[in-house]
Amino acid sequence: MPRVAIDVLLKHEILDPQGRAVERALPGLGYEGVEEVRVGKHLELDVDAEGEELARRVERMCADFLTNPVIESYAWRVIEDHERADHEPAEA
Amino acid sequence: MPRVAIDVLLKHEILDPQGRAVERALPGLGYEGVEEVRVGKHLELDVDAEGEELARRVERMCADFLTNPVIESYAWRVIEDHERADHEPAEA
Repeated sequence: MPRVAIDVLLKHEILDPQGRAVERALPGLGYEGVEEVRVGKHLELDVDAEGEELARRVERMCADFLTNPVIESYAWRVIEDHERADHEPAEA
Repeated sequence: MPRVAIDVLLKHEILDPQGRAVERALPGLGYEGVEEVRVGKHLELDVDAEGEELARRVERMCADFLTNPVIESYAWRVIEDHERADHEPAEA
């Protein structure tokens, strides 16, 4: 079953207070040179479909339930095991 | 300046109630065949660094500030404009 990653952010023209807060906190913590921070939602899920059927289902799910299309936009992709955010990193 | 996407999830062995809630709600909404839902955080930011220096800074920032390494794990990658979650999709 393909594993799908979905990233959701507030649309570019909408103020993201959480991103702004991170951006303003970073220099004080010693991280200079970080800009345009946006914070949103990340989902990973198994979907029992392939190809166009997979795309249709993921996009319908995103538009109808997982995001608010008025203020949010999203990107999705099929990922491999080593791309999972909960994969134990080799360097750890 | 490279744009970096960071995905954060609770570690695999830790219960994710939000993911579980999404997973249980989907069949009632007409979405069958979706399993192993995990919900976490997605960040996108510009970092003024390249190559190994970029990796060093992103990983330090994730470990020290953006994630809780006790319960969360993360994956990061450099993305192109068309991969941004707040990019207006061509199909919209």
